[in-house]
Amino acid sequence: MANFARLSAFICLLATPALALWPLPTLLETGNTTLTLSQNFTIELVDVEAPVDLVAAIERTKLHLASDKLQRLVVDRGASDAESVAVAPQLSSLKLSLTGEVTTISEETIKPLEDRVEGYTLQIPDDGGEAVITANTTLGLLRGLTTFEQIWYDVNATTYTLEAPFNIVDTPAYPYRGLHLDTSRNYFSVDTIKHHLDTMSMVKINTFHWHVVDSQSFPLIIPGYEVLAENGKYDNESIYTPEDVAGIIAYANERGIDVIAELDTPGHTTIIGNSFPEHIACPEATPWTTYANQPPAGQLRIASDDTRNFTKELVKATANMFNSQYFSPGGDEVNANCYRDDAETQEELEAQGIDIEEALDGFMNTIADGLREVNKTTVVWQEMAIAHNVTMPEDTLFFIWISAADALAVVQKGYRVIHAASDYFYLDCGMGAWLGDFPGGHSWCDPFKNWQKAYSFDPKANMTETEAELVMGGQSLLWAEQSDEHNLDQIVWPRAAASAEVFWSGEGGDAKAATQRLHDVSFRMRKRGVNSIALQPLWCALRENDCDLNP
Amino acid sequence: MANFARLSAFICLLATPALALWPLPTLLETGNTTLTLSQNFTIELVDVEAPVDLVAAIERTKLHLASDKLQRLVVDRGASDAESVAVAPQLSSLKLSLTGEVTTISEETIKPLEDRVEGYTLQIPDDGGEAVITANTTLGLLRGLTTFEQIWYDVNATTYTLEAPFNIVDTPAYPYRGLHLDTSRNYFSVDTIKHHLDTMSMVKINTFHWHVVDSQSFPLIIPGYEVLAENGKYDNESIYTPEDVAGIIAYANERGIDVIAELDTPGHTTIIGNSFPEHIACPEATPWTTYANQPPAGQLRIASDDTRNFTKELVKATANMFNSQYFSPGGDEVNANCYRDDAETQEELEAQGIDIEEALDGFMNTIADGLREVNKTTVVWQEMAIAHNVTMPEDTLFFIWISAADALAVVQKGYRVIHAASDYFYLDCGMGAWLGDFPGGHSWCDPFKNWQKAYSFDPKANMTETEAELVMGGQSLLWAEQSDEHNLDQIVWPRAAASAEVFWSGEGGDAKAATQRLHDVSFRMRKRGVNSIALQPLWCALRENDCDLNP
Repeated sequence: MANFARLSAFICLLATPALALWPLPTLLETGNTTLTLSQNFTIELVDVEAPVDLVAAIERTKLHLASDKLQRLVVDRGASDAESVAVAPQLSSLKLSLTGEVTTISEETIKPLEDRVEGYTLQIPDDGGEAVITANTTLGLLRGLTTFEQIWYDVNATTYTLEAPFNIVDTPAYPYRGLHLDTSRNYFSVDTIKHHLDTMSMVKINTFHWHVVDSQSFPLIIPGYEVLAENGKYDNESIYTPEDVAGIIAYANERGIDVIAELDTPGHTTIIGNSFPEHIACPEATPWTTYANQPPAGQLRIASDDTRNFTKELVKATANMFNSQYFSPGGDEVNANCYRDDAETQEELEAQGIDIEEALDGFMNTIADGLREVNKTTVVWQEMAIAHNVTMPEDTLFFIWISAADALAVVQKGYRVIHAASDYFYLDCGMGAWLGDFPGGHSWCDPFKNWQKAYSFDPKANMTETEAELVMGGQSLLWAEQSDEHNLDQIVWPRAAASAEVFWSGEGGDAKAATQRLHDVSFRMRKRGVNSIALQPLWCALRENDCDLNP
Repeated sequence: MANFARLSAFICLLATPALALWPLPTLLETGNTTLTLSQNFTIELVDVEAPVDLVAAIERTKLHLASDKLQRLVVDRGASDAESVAVAPQLSSLKLSLTGEVTTISEETIKPLEDRVEGYTLQIPDDGGEAVITANTTLGLLRGLTTFEQIWYDVNATTYTLEAPFNIVDTPAYPYRGLHLDTSRNYFSVDTIKHHLDTMSMVKINTFHWHVVDSQSFPLIIPGYEVLAENGKYDNESIYTPEDVAGIIAYANERGIDVIAELDTPGHTTIIGNSFPEHIACPEATPWTTYANQPPAGQLRIASDDTRNFTKELVKATANMFNSQYFSPGGDEVNANCYRDDAETQEELEAQGIDIEEALDGFMNTIADGLREVNKTTVVWQEMAIAHNVTMPEDTLFFIWISAADALAVVQKGYRVIHAASDYFYLDCGMGAWLGDFPGGHSWCDPFKNWQKAYSFDPKANMTETEAELVMGGQSLLWAEQSDEHNLDQIVWPRAAASAEVFWSGEGGDAKAATQRLHDVSFRMRKRGVNSIALQPLWCALRENDCDLNP
């Protein structure tokens, strides 16, 4: 460990930063010594027996170290490194040191946001001495392993870095760093979701926001409500059984990812009417443009006691399938025309002497009460705090989606927010209209959000320090009107890595400096079977900044 | 064949058109009788021995008929068809009748555009009698086989149609229907290109416009000029050997696709300077924004006799690798600043007493002369006719790319044109800036061109009948700054099918009526291993027009 004394000298000599590290660690000190991984390289947890999911994580890291074989993104692809690699000291072991309680990664992953501890330190000496990851939790050790995997390149079948020694002290700026996926408009298979979870974990995304059902299809088999999927699935292959869900959760949790499910209400629920028509107002009403933001129209009858109770129990049953502290009953895009033209709703409003806004307040709070009964915290879309007079419980989290600027109004009401803004983080924007009979139509959220746009995001824009404390983090989102598993990798990766870094490192901003690192992330993803797209011609990827607008 | 007498009656009863046919045939008459394919279904060429590539095409059709197993895109996916399918007459054979000379498909495919004969007729009776494709050429028979493959669906492992009998008389409106691919900015493997050729052939695209080299990389190994690829390839895996090229051409020709290669000149050629620095002006000059439309800058020295002769011989050697009647020496985006600031070019211009425009005219005509020496017809980008005072040979074809509106000026000069307009057919537009240090930057050709935009194209807009005769057809194009084989299927398909129909059927226009057919094309492509993207939620794909903007 004596080498770290020389670190400050090395930093001055450093030509390029440690390219592959994404998200960028809180503190990163590197040198310029070549170091290789020994053929007999080992990883072990010291002093205590490793929990089963940490053992699995270590095995995955070993596998990645052996199989990544990523060449450096320079013109000679690292060929000129071979000379120093041949005579370099070899790193023979990585020790994991757990300073806190011995718990599984999965247990740590699903703790409340304020209790989740993901920090770690990583030291790699340059003399062949052992490397060490120290963390207070197994979840922190997992994050350290993920960083360790990103250090290495390959030349002539040797795994090496040019930048030893490393001193990394790292902890996320925000506890929530998510990726949202919609599995209703088009279906994604269980294997595809797991593949996606692996990729999320590469960039330390810790939340899978699963918009599992919507008006178009209901693939989720909910115990006690099996009829919803029976009458709402696209086909027999396009379902998630309770076992599938448990498998996805376990797979996610082991990789440091919490699964927050969403059963959107009261809008986006037409399909429930296939099984329970009594609960749906304006089912498939036409023209859909009057009654919904997209076809088919139909919303839960918010003024009906029966429907409130039905929905409360349905949401509870769904929430009970998941082990997350959080569950979302949605709350976006409630259409007033639907209730205006629904005779039953109008009768119920009149009988109770309330208006639509009051009914909505009662409806959402009934659901939130239900979620509290099963010990869940409610997460809703922003409209519940801004567009409507709904008073949600104090601990409710809000997804900010319509515009990033809307976050301010919600934190000013004292609520916690998750950035999920369409103007920065919607992965489906800008691909042209998907509605039929609309030649040349744009997507509603044009233009396309490229990674640089997401990376320019400031999570605390215009907020006081106190307001900023209510920002829990943020996420990229994919609505699946024009996506399914045939293009999932391509539409998500590497773009979603931009928000992953913004919310881990605290800010993005300098896309110029980040471009080369993101190329590296993307090329490493490809080594792991992810069809991450090319950001630029390879000519540019091999020549840092030569393809900048102002080089 | 007696059943055709009843056709007119059936047409009146028809609920939906034969969904999967794309491009739409010139004449399509269908009935409403259920017909299945016999387990012992055979295809054979009558009277004469089939050429080897027709035999292969027949085998591919048999394979597709057995393996497509496409369900109908209706809510019950065809389950309710099972009853009529169980008792339906069976089609036991398809006869191919060749009325013209016995030649190979490949021979017919590479004939000059004006001599290419792709028409055919297809009759399928509804009583189990034999089906017949009649054509004057084997290429026409191939097109008929392709149409025949699109007739069929699957229910309970039975291949069937609900719309027998069929009477189809079909011939393309335009002889050129292309797809352009750029293999320089990022590389596409030989297998990926072949996969792509298979997909092109599904929608009767008959030209692969191969922009094979550019400033970023030079993957093509040209006999006598091997040094260009040696010094210009990205890596040893990213090359096309002469054998690869011959293999691609043979694969394409057998599928009715002509391969028109492009070696872009005098711009987009910096990389030639790696091997022949004497021929390149402003090599990698900075800032690139002054000297080129994208990095790196550098152009062939158009005023140098040596460079003219070098280029002429290089183009001839390249053209000789291809069996097409056509070859493109490019001609787009010539940058005047590059020559203005190049001392050698300025000296040469002065010595010859000419200006840049005159030098360009001499340069391009020297190349065209060279192409004539090897019996090729020259194809160039539109600037040679509009932006510059270049007088190309009369038989030159022009790609119209900057704006569809520019076609008019070129045909008014008496030249033949190929529509390739960025405002309709560029598949790479609208995905955000790829240049670095450009947060939130748009692509230069925003917005994204969705299939409906391409489909709205009118090939003869504002032209007189005589002018319109100079329209040879058109194509979709993919420039590969943000694409490589990891996202090729997704960015091209099914969008490129839109231009394929516009230029086969003569016009697109009614996207409302075409949406359901394009879903069908896309789903059938998936059955053949193409990752064609979802155009809409599956809910919409199963409910024709329910997701139209104005349903």
